[in-house]
Amino acid sequence: MDGTHAARTVTEVMATAEPPAAATPFGRASRDFLFGEVWSRPGLSRRDRRWVTLTCVAAADSPGPIEEHVHAALASGDIELEALLEFVLHFAVYCGWPKASHLEGAIARQWDRVHRERGEETPPWPQLPNDTLGPGVWDERLKRGVEEFIDVNLMPAPPTNSPYRHAGILGFVFGHVWQRPGLTRRERRIVTVASVALDDSPVPLQTHVTAALHSGDLTKEEMDEIVLQFAAYYGFAKGEALADAVETAWASKPG
Amino acid sequence: MDGTHAARTVTEVMATAEPPAAATPFGRASRDFLFGEVWSRPGLSRRDRRWVTLTCVAAADSPGPIEEHVHAALASGDIELEALLEFVLHFAVYCGWPKASHLEGAIARQWDRVHRERGEETPPWPQLPNDTLGPGVWDERLKRGVEEFIDVNLMPAPPTNSPYRHAGILGFVFGHVWQRPGLTRRERRIVTVASVALDDSPVPLQTHVTAALHSGDLTKEEMDEIVLQFAAYYGFAKGEALADAVETAWASKPG
Amino acid sequence: MDGTHAARTVTEVMATAEPPAAATPFGRASRDFLFGEVWSRPGLSRRDRRWVTLTCVAAADSPGPIEEHVHAALASGDIELEALLEFVLHFAVYCGWPKASHLEGAIARQWDRVHRERGEETPPWPQLPNDTLGPGVWDERLKRGVEEFIDVNLMPAPPTNSPYRHAGILGFVFGHVWQRPGLTRRERRIVTVASVALDDSPVPLQTHVTAALHSGDLTKEEMDEIVLQFAAYYGFAKGEALADAVETAWASKPG
Repeated sequence: MDGTHAARTVTEVMATAEPPAAATPFGRASRDFLFGEVWSRPGLSRRDRRWVTLTCVAAADSPGPIEEHVHAALASGDIELEALLEFVLHFAVYCGWPKASHLEGAIARQWDRVHRERGEETPPWPQLPNDTLGPGVWDERLKRGVEEFIDVNLMPAPPTNSPYRHAGILGFVFGHVWQRPGLTRRERRIVTVASVALDDSPVPLQTHVTAALHSGDLTKEEMDEIVLQFAAYYGFAKGEALADAVETAWASKPG
Repeated sequence: MDGTHAARTVTEVMATAEPPAAATPFGRASRDFLFGEVWSRPGLSRRDRRWVTLTCVAAADSPGPIEEHVHAALASGDIELEALLEFVLHFAVYCGWPKASHLEGAIARQWDRVHRERGEETPPWPQLPNDTLGPGVWDERLKRGVEEFIDVNLMPAPPTNSPYRHAGILGFVFGHVWQRPGLTRRERRIVTVASVALDDSPVPLQTHVTAALHSGDLTKEEMDEIVLQFAAYYGFAKGEALADAVETAWASKPG
Repeated sequence: MDGTHAARTVTEVMATAEPPAAATPFGRASRDFLFGEVWSRPGLSRRDRRWVTLTCVAAADSPGPIEEHVHAALASGDIELEALLEFVLHFAVYCGWPKASHLEGAIARQWDRVHRERGEETPPWPQLPNDTLGPGVWDERLKRGVEEFIDVNLMPAPPTNSPYRHAGILGFVFGHVWQRPGLTRRERRIVTVASVALDDSPVPLQTHVTAALHSGDLTKEEMDEIVLQFAAYYGFAKGEALADAVETAWASKPG
């Protein structure tokens, strides 16, 4: 196993000058498997691999890795601040507000650190105008929510017969969040697939994986890479459930 | 340990005719520790213990317990359907949409089962009118969101300088969800405390536990019972983090 | 309830001079249920109980318990450093890289603390020779991976038709990690069972529990104790899913 290639990938991906010592079985496997193999693979861009990884580390709550990967995303230039902040909101919907709160704190710290490292002053985050919140007329908002739900999920929207479906799903998640610019539909799908995989609620897992593939927004090759990246960062047990969902979705793809 | 008392508590809490066989160490500990001790304790009502338990089982994704505890909540009469459906939305905010989706499916199944068991037809869930969605004028909605944030968290509201804070926290979570009737402020605090405990992002954990105690909405005795109920259903590892947060919050309570 | 016996068990297991105060319902249940009952039980060795517990606390991310249980494992002499470092890698496979990274940090801190407590200098971690990385010729590695997969899982190996299965499962998980010395096959099974239980993806849960029992590497009595130890640290909700998987596997055991 060529440690040189792996070590170089570590420094590129993690935006560090030197790779950490590979002095333990875990450290050695980090260098050789995680970076030497998984991060080095073609088939999924580095930016897309970061979306999967950021979702996993943020959901895992491990404090060090969250700071390191947020820093790496910013310092490498692979992901700009605005996209990271949109990611926080999408992640909040799929993994819950408390973890998103912690993630946003990490982004604030690492945004500051990146500028200090460059000897620059840290630009503040601008206030957002209210016209970014979408229509305030509920009939119109819910109508657009229904359309977005169908477009994303490739199935009919639910009725508005519960708070979760009415205020939540149609009024907010598809009525607003999925429509926000700053993250592409495709990127939102990547974050969502990783999120439903770490949750493994069976129906949302199959629904979102199927929609991602059947829409054509993600290819089978890209999805297969997402499975491996996810398995490395959230474990091969949940990785297996995601792998199965991908195979099921691919087998049922029309045409 | 009086097995009769424990067995009786099982049937009451789980709304079953017969307690399950206690044939393994786990089965016996379920009967004797979980029901014989924890569920039987004074200091926290059965309905409030159900809020903690429902949050834990829904977040844990364990399919059997989710169905059993949702059924028990409905069949016992301790929690009415409307409150359960409000719980789904609050839970979605704190534990993420996919788990909430699964939870709502369980509620639909168990609502149907409860009526079949009674030989009744299952009433449908009524469509919700749009005037339950709150103000659509953003300035007003955010202003109320700021007020609700301060009232709930006992600290200043964040600036609107990220999508998460603007559209999410102020526009939706405090700008709408916490204000909805159907669950009391106190009940929302119980679900939120259990949610931040199972996530254990450190700052939200301390923030919500502190606000729950300092507001007076939950007493120290009630919070101590919530810690034990939570530890039983989500484990003593995360239970310890919650216990520590409670002691820290109590030590800093003014007066 | 004999508080003296429980208190003594706490100090033995946690390698502390004094048990912590049991001043709250949670504190008393920790002492009486966790230590007075669960840790005190025959049927599973203390070292094996530590494997279950370490997996649970590391996955739960609760910072205090991770440090306490890693310290206790080292200070008690029940688990040596080399085995703990192998555990980190196996845990990384099943619970993901970020949590494993945090766990390894805790081991470094507690390794240092144990030596300071003894007034000794902290020995560095042993260098790993390159031949611990397994065969570098891929045909041979995958061939051995297939053999190990079948031997561990008691079922045919999957085809190499996805990155997850090829580079992940056969090239790394079974092609390398399960074959490493430093943890026995049986110990790897214990850690894996606890991992799939806390994840509760249904197929890996049933697969690994079934293989553990049908291989004879773990007896029914030991598995029942693992269920209880797990339920104590990761909760009775997920504990129930594990208990059900054990009963299903036992009922289908040949002979």
